[in-house]
Amino acid sequence: MESHLNDTADNTMMDLKAIAAAVNPDRLAHDLATLAKFGGRSDGGVARLALDDNDTRARRWLVEQASFLGAKASVDAIGNVFLDVPGRQPSLAPVVTGSHLDSQPAGGKYDGALGVLAGLEALRALKQAGFTPRRPLSLVSWTNEEGARFSPGTSGSAVFCGVRSLEDTRQLTDSDDISLGSALDVCLAELDGAGVPRRPLATPMHAFIELHIEQGPILERDQVPVGVVEGIQGVSWFEVTVTGSANHAGTTPRALRRDAFEGACALATALREAACDSEDRVRFTIGKFVVSPGSVNTIPDHVTFSIDVRHPDAATLKALEATFTQLAQQRWADCQATLTPLAHVEPVDFPNSLTRLLDDTAHTLEITTTRLVSGAFHDAIHLAKHCPTAMLFVPCRHGLSHHPDEHITLSDAVAGTQLLAASLANLTR
Amino acid sequence: MESHLNDTADNTMMDLKAIAAAVNPDRLAHDLATLAKFGGRSDGGVARLALDDNDTRARRWLVEQASFLGAKASVDAIGNVFLDVPGRQPSLAPVVTGSHLDSQPAGGKYDGALGVLAGLEALRALKQAGFTPRRPLSLVSWTNEEGARFSPGTSGSAVFCGVRSLEDTRQLTDSDDISLGSALDVCLAELDGAGVPRRPLATPMHAFIELHIEQGPILERDQVPVGVVEGIQGVSWFEVTVTGSANHAGTTPRALRRDAFEGACALATALREAACDSEDRVRFTIGKFVVSPGSVNTIPDHVTFSIDVRHPDAATLKALEATFTQLAQQRWADCQATLTPLAHVEPVDFPNSLTRLLDDTAHTLEITTTRLVSGAFHDAIHLAKHCPTAMLFVPCRHGLSHHPDEHITLSDAVAGTQLLAASLANLTR
Repeated sequence: MESHLNDTADNTMMDLKAIAAAVNPDRLAHDLATLAKFGGRSDGGVARLALDDNDTRARRWLVEQASFLGAKASVDAIGNVFLDVPGRQPSLAPVVTGSHLDSQPAGGKYDGALGVLAGLEALRALKQAGFTPRRPLSLVSWTNEEGARFSPGTSGSAVFCGVRSLEDTRQLTDSDDISLGSALDVCLAELDGAGVPRRPLATPMHAFIELHIEQGPILERDQVPVGVVEGIQGVSWFEVTVTGSANHAGTTPRALRRDAFEGACALATALREAACDSEDRVRFTIGKFVVSPGSVNTIPDHVTFSIDVRHPDAATLKALEATFTQLAQQRWADCQATLTPLAHVEPVDFPNSLTRLLDDTAHTLEITTTRLVSGAFHDAIHLAKHCPTAMLFVPCRHGLSHHPDEHITLSDAVAGTQLLAASLANLTR
Repeated sequence: MESHLNDTADNTMMDLKAIAAAVNPDRLAHDLATLAKFGGRSDGGVARLALDDNDTRARRWLVEQASFLGAKASVDAIGNVFLDVPGRQPSLAPVVTGSHLDSQPAGGKYDGALGVLAGLEALRALKQAGFTPRRPLSLVSWTNEEGARFSPGTSGSAVFCGVRSLEDTRQLTDSDDISLGSALDVCLAELDGAGVPRRPLATPMHAFIELHIEQGPILERDQVPVGVVEGIQGVSWFEVTVTGSANHAGTTPRALRRDAFEGACALATALREAACDSEDRVRFTIGKFVVSPGSVNTIPDHVTFSIDVRHPDAATLKALEATFTQLAQQRWADCQATLTPLAHVEPVDFPNSLTRLLDDTAHTLEITTTRLVSGAFHDAIHLAKHCPTAMLFVPCRHGLSHHPDEHITLSDAVAGTQLLAASLANLTR
């Protein structure tokens, strides 16, 4: 799967630097500001929900950028929009970049949008640097990554890659009981009207590179402009219930209590200790914790809490799950606990050949990078099943995302776009 | 305050045993069943809220019992009902027993009711045993002890003893915005119509003895039929808030987290350890614990929790409060905590002379007793400011109260009533 990536033997340092130099910061900044108006909120954020009017207007805007690139726009049955730049050998599978245009209801300007616009700017830079790719190049915007209007998200990439069926996905409904299918049909009719042709799903790809904001604090802390993403963490969700016995807070001696809060607190502490690794790679969170009956002077008889645990390594995640299961089988403050698995997603490792190519290209461009693992999900999780896939992250202020205050610096965005453009050149030569 | 209790020099073992033998289990059982019909619930519990129709009917029933005793019924301005049995020296302050007739909305048959009916049966037994008291004897039912309809509770005893004003108390409202004053006026009008005369508040008392169900598990565990109550625990309530920083569960390394749940859990554990005494006399409860925003994959930024801490000794309670305050000033999981006092009630010690008299009387009757401290509040907390006061507890099954399944055995109820009757005799000779 990885050996056919090595088309990079004849690259020269000078080409790549010329390509990077052709990335235009003002044009990228202007595009970010333009796109942020489709669904712009008065607080500076963006509300561009999947397949709403703003999302459709953003797609039309994207389609209009094709002519400058000499690219052909098309849309598939789940609404993914592609701009295809021809290569010298049109029969080869394309190298693809992109992300998503939809946002959270109180989202920011960069989550998803940056990856689409950085891809657009990278393609323009390649053209302006006079680079003619051997392979075709494509820019893609995947439908409904966020899952904020229609849940679950990553609909476009999942259907494209055959992970979910188009029919099932069309039947998702929003809070007004509108189906994804009917919203999609409105959007597709508008693109049809604009003369955008249809394209098939599941077309082959040589590689997929997605640029995204980190949505975490590591790059900012380490003052590194671009992260090379090695993979996406696996995640397991559990629900834990702890059952004790309700009693009067004033009259029940400690020796006769079965305090569900005390038990749950002790179990939560033991789980946290079990998840504590010296490398700080385990992500362990108890985010929900509900105590019943919740009266000041009644000893609680029930606690229900959530566990969200993540790790890039499947075996480590599995071992943690086993430890948690064992801990929940013990009695805590003489209370009984039960642990129920709610969800599990296996970790994804991006191929070394691809992440090494990103490292090497960054080295050529003298852009500082660091390796990291994605803590959030992305369309790349499905693409990784379809073709060699990797991601680039740029820092976001305070690690904040899904919030109107989401913020990146233009210089980081430019560095990421330069690395993306040069890497696409390396992959398509 | 205590020396004038020692009127017991001429008691003889034989009188007391005759009085105890005159307690009629069938009559007590019949009264308990009769009273449970006023507000009886289909699940076996009782809903007799303060000053509702059922409570007023129960008062009228109680007034009707006066004639058998040769007693005079009367009612004061806050609705407390008294049955006064004359003594050989009518000018002396009476010895008083009683409790309350109101219940929780899903209450049981015994909380409060037992103390009134055991007092009634004790007066009947004294009469039937041919005992003529030197001091007058009174049976009282205090208004709105529970505070379930009008909060706070212990209204009748607090107003009687001058702890709260009648005017303020009349202005309490229930959930339908009916004032205690207007509900009280309806009840008083009905008692007026039945010819029950008014009596003043704050009349002197020689002593007050209240019999009650334990509402805790100690007597049941120790298989003791009657507890001699040494006092009522002091209690302090606090609200603790812990403030951290919300972040993405998947992307934020442990080193960069300020997890309010982790901090609150650690602080709660430290508070619990600080409250852990080898004697098991401290009652420490965290009953409310609310985590925000309460999402599985978001690190919590806020936790608010309650502390209910109780101890019979005022200095120990104060020292615990100081320790809690110090602990809350530390940082927990890099989060800030604040501790706010919500309520404080000082412990009450019942006079040794009175509890010793109860012990001695039990010894004469060969009734096994143990000493204990009340974990719940009672009208006796106010009466203790008015006159020498003590309480007797009988075991309740599983320590359960404020619940339709509240249960006592008749033999324990009889033992308690026998000890109450003989103790009243000792106090009134």
